[in-house]
Amino acid sequence: MKQRSIALLGCGTVGRGLVELIRKNRALIAERSGVDLTISKILVRDMGKDRGDVDRSLLTCRPEEVITNGSDVVVELIGGIEPARTFIARAIGEGKNVVTANKAVLAHSGAELFRAAAARNVRIGFEASVGGGIPIVRALTCGLVGDRILEISGIVNGTCNYILTRMAEEKLSFAQALAAAQKEGFAEADPSLDIDGIDAAQKLEILAELAFGLQLDPGRVRVQGIRDIDLEDLQSAEALGYVVKHVAIAKDLGRELDLRVHPAFLPKNHPLAHVRHEFNAVRLKGDAVGEMIFHGKGAGGSPTASAVLSDIIDLVKGDTGPVHLPEPVEKPVAPDIESEYYLRFPILDVPGVIGLIATALGNRGVSISHASATLVRGAPDKGSVKILAHRCRESVLRKSVDEIARLPVLTGKPVVLRILEEVT
Amino acid sequence: MKQRSIALLGCGTVGRGLVELIRKNRALIAERSGVDLTISKILVRDMGKDRGDVDRSLLTCRPEEVITNGSDVVVELIGGIEPARTFIARAIGEGKNVVTANKAVLAHSGAELFRAAAARNVRIGFEASVGGGIPIVRALTCGLVGDRILEISGIVNGTCNYILTRMAEEKLSFAQALAAAQKEGFAEADPSLDIDGIDAAQKLEILAELAFGLQLDPGRVRVQGIRDIDLEDLQSAEALGYVVKHVAIAKDLGRELDLRVHPAFLPKNHPLAHVRHEFNAVRLKGDAVGEMIFHGKGAGGSPTASAVLSDIIDLVKGDTGPVHLPEPVEKPVAPDIESEYYLRFPILDVPGVIGLIATALGNRGVSISHASATLVRGAPDKGSVKILAHRCRESVLRKSVDEIARLPVLTGKPVVLRILEEVT
Repeated sequence: MKQRSIALLGCGTVGRGLVELIRKNRALIAERSGVDLTISKILVRDMGKDRGDVDRSLLTCRPEEVITNGSDVVVELIGGIEPARTFIARAIGEGKNVVTANKAVLAHSGAELFRAAAARNVRIGFEASVGGGIPIVRALTCGLVGDRILEISGIVNGTCNYILTRMAEEKLSFAQALAAAQKEGFAEADPSLDIDGIDAAQKLEILAELAFGLQLDPGRVRVQGIRDIDLEDLQSAEALGYVVKHVAIAKDLGRELDLRVHPAFLPKNHPLAHVRHEFNAVRLKGDAVGEMIFHGKGAGGSPTASAVLSDIIDLVKGDTGPVHLPEPVEKPVAPDIESEYYLRFPILDVPGVIGLIATALGNRGVSISHASATLVRGAPDKGSVKILAHRCRESVLRKSVDEIARLPVLTGKPVVLRILEEVT
Repeated sequence: MKQRSIALLGCGTVGRGLVELIRKNRALIAERSGVDLTISKILVRDMGKDRGDVDRSLLTCRPEEVITNGSDVVVELIGGIEPARTFIARAIGEGKNVVTANKAVLAHSGAELFRAAAARNVRIGFEASVGGGIPIVRALTCGLVGDRILEISGIVNGTCNYILTRMAEEKLSFAQALAAAQKEGFAEADPSLDIDGIDAAQKLEILAELAFGLQLDPGRVRVQGIRDIDLEDLQSAEALGYVVKHVAIAKDLGRELDLRVHPAFLPKNHPLAHVRHEFNAVRLKGDAVGEMIFHGKGAGGSPTASAVLSDIIDLVKGDTGPVHLPEPVEKPVAPDIESEYYLRFPILDVPGVIGLIATALGNRGVSISHASATLVRGAPDKGSVKILAHRCRESVLRKSVDEIARLPVLTGKPVVLRILEEVT
C-alpha cells in the first residue's frame, strides 16, 4: 500500500466535501487504488470559522505551509483567478502535481499554467472544473482519444438550469426563482457570474480546448445570460412545443469556431430538454463513437469532491504520461451565425403593430413562421408581440430588431432567443 | 513520438472498424497521445473473404503469428468463449497486454484471465465489453474511484432495445421487429444470445464486479428475455403511461445482491424510458457523485472500435499501475425480490374469468391496482386479461400465476413483467 498525502488550498463547500469523502471512503479507495490517502494541511482565510468535523489541527492561514510541505499533490479549491493562480504557479514551481476545480483560473491562465507544469514535468488535474461529478474531461482525454470531436454542447451551469426549471415548472418569475436558488444554495449572493453566462463560457472554453485540441485566448465565447428571460417567454415556448434552456455550444467549422452560451428554445424531444434543476448534461459527437450524452450533478460539494478525488488518485498512482500542450491557434470565432429565432417585443396595444414589426423584418428578408400578440385588457402598455423567425443570419436579424426597438410603439427591450433545431 | 504496434485477433465488424479508425485518425491520435500506432498482423479464419480496404498483407490464419510477434498489445475481437479464451491466455503467457471487447469470455473466465495477467504483470483492457462506445468501465474504475456505488442499472443490449423501440413506435409484431433488426445488422441470424437476455446478463456481471468490487461466479444473474413480449403488452403499457424496456439492474443489498435482466414497465418519465433503438444507457448512483447517466451507441463497429482504441492507448502509454483483483465473494443473489407487476393472461371469453384470476391472486394476498379484459368479437379464444399488481414478493406472485396457468380458461402462457418505480 502506497502512503500519499495531499494539501488543500481552501475549505469551502468542495473542500469540506473532499475531507468528508476521504474520511468516509478511505478504506474503499485504498482497496481499489492501492493508495492510502491522508490530508496533511488545509489553507483557510479565517481560522475562527466553524468548519464542522474538519480536524482543526490541519488548518493554517499561511500559504507556504500548504504549498511547500511534503504533500504529494496540492489541491486548489479557492476558486476565482487570484490568489488561486499565484498559489497554483508556486505549487508547480515546487514540483508538485496540482488538482483544481477552478474553471475561472483555467479559462484565464490555463495556457501559462500548463506550460509551467510541462516545464517542471508535473501535471494539473481538472476533471472537476467542468460538469461537477460528470467525468467529461477524462472521457475527452482518454475515452475518446481516437475520435475526432465534431461538436460538443450541453447544459453546464446548474444555477441557470435550476432557475429556468423552477420558472417553467412552477410559473415563478425570474426574481422568485433566483431567490429560491439562493435559498437552496444553488446561486451565490451575487449571482452574476452564473446568470450572465460567464461561468458557462469558461467551462465551454475548457471543453472546446479539450475537444478540438486548441489553445484559445480567453473571452472568445459569444455570451448571453438569462437575466432578460421572462415567465412569458417560457410560457410561449411551452405553448409552441419548446422548453427554454441555457446551453453551451462548441463546433469546429473548419476555418472558424462557433463558440456560444445562451438561452435557447429546444424542441421538447431534444436530448437536453429533460435536464432539470441543478443537473448538467454534456452531449458530444465523435466521428467514431457517434452521439453520446453524459448526465449528472454539475455542482455541489460532494459530486465535485468525487471528481477532485479521481484526479488525485490518477496523479498519485503515477498514471502520468507526458503532458501534451496544444499549440495556440489563431482560429477565429465565426463572426456571424445562422439560426431560427424567437422574438418578443413589449408593445403598446395600438392597431397595426404586428404589421409594423413584420414589415421591418420582411424588409431585410427575415421570414416569419409564427406571429402572435398578447394584449392585456385595460393595460394597453403591457402588450407583447411574439415572433418565430425562420432560419436567417443573426447579423441581419439584429439589424431588424434594432430598427424595431426604435419604433415609438415599443415599451421595453426586445428579447431575442435562438431556437435549436433537433438533429438526431 | 513512441512507435507502437498492435496485433488483431479477428477482423469482423469491430476489427474492420478499428483498422479504419486508425487509418483515418492516426495523426490525431499521435498528436493527442504521443503514440504512433500501427497494425502488425491480423488473424482471420478465411483468407479469401472480402474485407474492404484492409491491407491483405497483414492477414494470416496462424494464431501464433499474431500472438507471438513483436506487437505491444494483442487485441481480441473474435467474440464468444473459445478460441478467444485460449488466445487471450496465450497472449498473457507471452507477456502481452491484451484488449478485448468480449463480454462472454470475461463473464465466463474473467477471474482466471485477470489472475494470469496479474501474475505476468500485464493488463487487460475491456472498456468495449460493456456499453460499446460509452466509457463506463473507465468511469467506474477511475472517475468514481472515491464513490461507493449503491446501484447500477441500464439498457445494455442494443438488439432488445431496437426490437422493443420498433414494436412500440411502429406497432410491429415481435417477429416483424426482429426481422427488421436482422436486416439493419442489429441482430444476428441466431438472435438468442441477445433476445434471451444472455448478453445483457454477461454485461451486468462485469458492471456489478466493477461497481461493487466483487468477483462473481458466472451465471448468477436472474434472466428474462423479450421473446414472450407481444405488441399487446406494449400497447397496454402505453395506455397505462409506461414504456417497456429490457433493463439490467445490480444492487448491493448488504448481505445479498440483486442482479437481474428482464423486460420491465417503466414510467414514461423514467430516465431510461427515452433510450431508443440501438442506443444503450447506464445509470448509476454513487454515495458522493449522486445519480449519473451515460447514454450512447452500445454497439456497432465504429463506436466499439473507439472504446477498444482508448484501451490500447492507455496500455501503450504505460498508464499501468498495479492490477487490483477483488477477492472471490460468497455473497448470494437474493432468493426473492419485491416489485409491482404487469400480468397478461390469454383467456377464453367466458363469464367470470376476471373473477377467477382476481380470486387466485387475492387468495395469496396479491392486491390488484388495475384489471381489464380485452375480448375479440367472434373470436372467444383470443381474449386476454391484464392486471397491474401492487408491490408484492415475486415468489408469492409466481405461485398465484402458476395456479392461474392451470385454469381451463387459459389459452396460453401468462406473461409476467416487473414494473420499475421511479425513484428520482
